[in-house]
Amino acid sequence: MGAGFELDARLTADTFPVGDLPLCRVLLMRDRRYAWLVLVPRRPGMVEVADLTAEDRAELWREVDRAGAALRSVAPCDKLNIGALGNIVRQLHVHVLPRVEGDAAWPGPVWGHSPAEAYGEGEAPRLVEALKAQLCL
Amino acid sequence: MGAGFELDARLTADTFPVGDLPLCRVLLMRDRRYAWLVLVPRRPGMVEVADLTAEDRAELWREVDRAGAALRSVAPCDKLNIGALGNIVRQLHVHVLPRVEGDAAWPGPVWGHSPAEAYGEGEAPRLVEALKAQLCL
Repeated sequence: MGAGFELDARLTADTFPVGDLPLCRVLLMRDRRYAWLVLVPRRPGMVEVADLTAEDRAELWREVDRAGAALRSVAPCDKLNIGALGNIVRQLHVHVLPRVEGDAAWPGPVWGHSPAEAYGEGEAPRLVEALKAQLCL
Repeated sequence: MGAGFELDARLTADTFPVGDLPLCRVLLMRDRRYAWLVLVPRRPGMVEVADLTAEDRAELWREVDRAGAALRSVAPCDKLNIGALGNIVRQLHVHVLPRVEGDAAWPGPVWGHSPAEAYGEGEAPRLVEALKAQLCL
């Protein structure tokens, strides 16, 4: 599976790779303010969730659940946010991130709020490893 | 089903009722700038998608698909946006709305962007009727 799949250049630039679940590539956004995952179904040419087969759609949402559970086990979470927007990057992707009261964008959405803040030395690899362990990757 | 379910007061105030799918109450936001549906699972006490049973979760996303298809058939859509945030209203709800290039919040998210614009006389009932027909409600 995934033949012909190529990750969008902007998603590549904005994230660290975490690993591949059965359907989705899992990415960590390069923004230390949020433990922010992006799930990208490894199917070429997908834009809308509705472009996926019914089977893939069901798997996508199961993987969103898995990502949410993994995030809650490694990061504080007052409310999980899930979003499939794609107004700028059209390759189908789903955001999953825990929000904490008083975080930079709270209570508004994180998308388009303010420039990302880079992770410090070694911080992102530690979070990636913790997430891989939770996701069995 | 739905015993003990009560719609959040803010969701009630901000929307027109469209009808009930098997799991979710379907609401139309009172903002004429977007054909903006909100789906609320009729289960008391739900906050996160993960609070639902696996069966209800699967049904929720199927109903999100149905809502998206209904919206595309009655309104222009360059990109469907789907969001489960709940940072302000904690009762579990999922936003589904078509976005159009150049709309008020484009390409940013609609949540928290700017005050709603009221529908004109008769506009909302016409859209509600069209959506009900598409959703077989």
